[in-house]
Amino acid sequence: MSSPTVTYLDHAATAPPHREVLEAMWPYLTGTFANPASQHEPGEHARQALEHARRRVAEHLGARPAEIIFTSGGTEADNAAVKGLALASEHRRRVLVSAMEHPAVLDSARWLERFGYEHEILPADAQGLVSPETLEAALLRGSGPGGPALVSIQYASNEVGTVQDIPALARVAAAHGAPFHTDAVQAAGQLPLAVEELGVQAMSLAGHKLGTPKGIGVLYLRRRTPFEPLIHGGGQQRGRRSGTENVAGAVGMAAALDLTTAQDSSALAVRRDEFIRQVEQSTGGPGRTQAQLTGHRSRRLPGHASFIMAGRSGESVLLDLQRRGISCSSGSACDAERQDPSPALLAMGYSSEEAQAALRFTFGPQTSEGELLRTAELLTEA
Amino acid sequence: MSSPTVTYLDHAATAPPHREVLEAMWPYLTGTFANPASQHEPGEHARQALEHARRRVAEHLGARPAEIIFTSGGTEADNAAVKGLALASEHRRRVLVSAMEHPAVLDSARWLERFGYEHEILPADAQGLVSPETLEAALLRGSGPGGPALVSIQYASNEVGTVQDIPALARVAAAHGAPFHTDAVQAAGQLPLAVEELGVQAMSLAGHKLGTPKGIGVLYLRRRTPFEPLIHGGGQQRGRRSGTENVAGAVGMAAALDLTTAQDSSALAVRRDEFIRQVEQSTGGPGRTQAQLTGHRSRRLPGHASFIMAGRSGESVLLDLQRRGISCSSGSACDAERQDPSPALLAMGYSSEEAQAALRFTFGPQTSEGELLRTAELLTEA
Repeated sequence: MSSPTVTYLDHAATAPPHREVLEAMWPYLTGTFANPASQHEPGEHARQALEHARRRVAEHLGARPAEIIFTSGGTEADNAAVKGLALASEHRRRVLVSAMEHPAVLDSARWLERFGYEHEILPADAQGLVSPETLEAALLRGSGPGGPALVSIQYASNEVGTVQDIPALARVAAAHGAPFHTDAVQAAGQLPLAVEELGVQAMSLAGHKLGTPKGIGVLYLRRRTPFEPLIHGGGQQRGRRSGTENVAGAVGMAAALDLTTAQDSSALAVRRDEFIRQVEQSTGGPGRTQAQLTGHRSRRLPGHASFIMAGRSGESVLLDLQRRGISCSSGSACDAERQDPSPALLAMGYSSEEAQAALRFTFGPQTSEGELLRTAELLTEA
Repeated sequence: MSSPTVTYLDHAATAPPHREVLEAMWPYLTGTFANPASQHEPGEHARQALEHARRRVAEHLGARPAEIIFTSGGTEADNAAVKGLALASEHRRRVLVSAMEHPAVLDSARWLERFGYEHEILPADAQGLVSPETLEAALLRGSGPGGPALVSIQYASNEVGTVQDIPALARVAAAHGAPFHTDAVQAAGQLPLAVEELGVQAMSLAGHKLGTPKGIGVLYLRRRTPFEPLIHGGGQQRGRRSGTENVAGAVGMAAALDLTTAQDSSALAVRRDEFIRQVEQSTGGPGRTQAQLTGHRSRRLPGHASFIMAGRSGESVLLDLQRRGISCSSGSACDAERQDPSPALLAMGYSSEEAQAALRFTFGPQTSEGELLRTAELLTEA
């Protein structure tokens, strides 16, 4: 639904809403509007829709409906997971997060300091990968009262697209008795979400990266995982997230996940690799700005290509492309108000200058090969 | 937009969405979908819509745009206010909340206990009013390190409709240097919201009580009020509420507030008084269930009538009415999952049995006189 004159390559910031999602939501934005907690017929209709959506979301995750908590988005889900799992920890006061995390995770871990928690940042390698050995070593450094209250490592990077080996990392955490959370906001829709195979106790999703409007997200929370709610009140969602549920949003979330099953991630990955090849080739000539791929070449999101434009600021290339009708990103939209270089890129070993030259192209199944080809060509001119 | 066969008298749980609100939101659910933090043209369009909505909401409150924080709803706004103002307090550790508060406020105050805060519950009289003298006495009991970090008193009761004298209460709090928060979720749309006249530092609103879909709310936070965010991350909304903003929701919130200016609250109050008279008269005969008004007779929400049905359970009358096509509430929808009698009614001096016999009818300008008359008649039969 993006304007035909704009090639929108910023799906990682917000994906275009799906028509089918809006159609599924419509009845709950209009006639079936009641409060799902109300003990009357209109309330019962809203409640049924909400619980149906919860069951469908649970199915996509291989989880139970009671393990699905609807939130207002990915940031709230991350906050609820990191703060909620740590604050529920009886005796352990150490929180391990990776250097690649979204600020919603990093800042939540930092916030816990004032309540007597320590947090430790797990380093990543030059491709943005956090190794199970790194996690193991960090876990071995502390035990007992200094033991881990939580490990939180993102599934895939919003900035460089690198996909972590979540099953291996979660196994290490489990061996040390630490609950494991993964921020799957970028992974959802492109990578498998079966929580049993991933081995996670908690996982965050955001609807608007999947084609719902903004304002809906999901926190998967494995049964019997000690948890302290972020938002208290009327006791909705088994007391784990109070507040009248966003029924239409929940229905949209389920519909968006339904659509992802029909999507072919491997076809997207083929298109991504072709795009990366074109960009590297076209910018590789003599006297040209050299585009350097950031993140892992193969362990990366199917719809994600990110570069550092040696010798240029990402911002200026961004503006050049914008003038030519291409919307992409110089980094994470979530951190756009901050002018500092990306902590994730610094952690991967890039200099501040290099980190300021970052450029990100993120796309979906609706993005055509032609749009990507044209973008690679325009990047040469820019 | 409720079904024509149902008389929907549960606006306090969720009001029917306004057609004009949905129309205003539609572009931001479809074509103008981008992330308002994105540094490209589609992002700029979303950002402009968001900031325009923020300015319009601010105007309705007589506030500045920078004082408006969009949240996911009233419960989040209440949590952010109570926890955020208290946790930002340097030395004061006492939180005063009224016995009439919504669980979002009460449970937030209770949660603060584990971080060394005390909370004190201010009593209400038989009509649900909290007097300025009661607040003054409570504030005089503690000062210095035991001084008040926060006073939170709701503007109007969701359960019994009683409207507090917020300007007088806020003046008392100000004289003791305590920040004052009011939960205006029920008041919004029916009572004046000018924050300077109210004298509050913080105020919560919920869109779905005003005719927006669920998932949007507002926290007004007066400039220079120390505040600790509830949700951390990308630093959106000046760092006070991280997470990609719900642009369509914000636009809907502004549109819903625009519509309230055209609404005539005094006409609604006249209809309410006539309805209360009819109910009292029709149920007053010999051998009939006596309906007893709860809350204050005149200082009450224009669209709110609540009763105790002596000798009957509220639940059974509710079901009788439902069978006759009337949707109302036996209490607060927000607390429907709990089976305990309402703490607010107990605080007003009702017995547990009486509190279980509560019945609430809440309506708006769209509700016809005929619907209310028919309801009063059916109540006699029920």
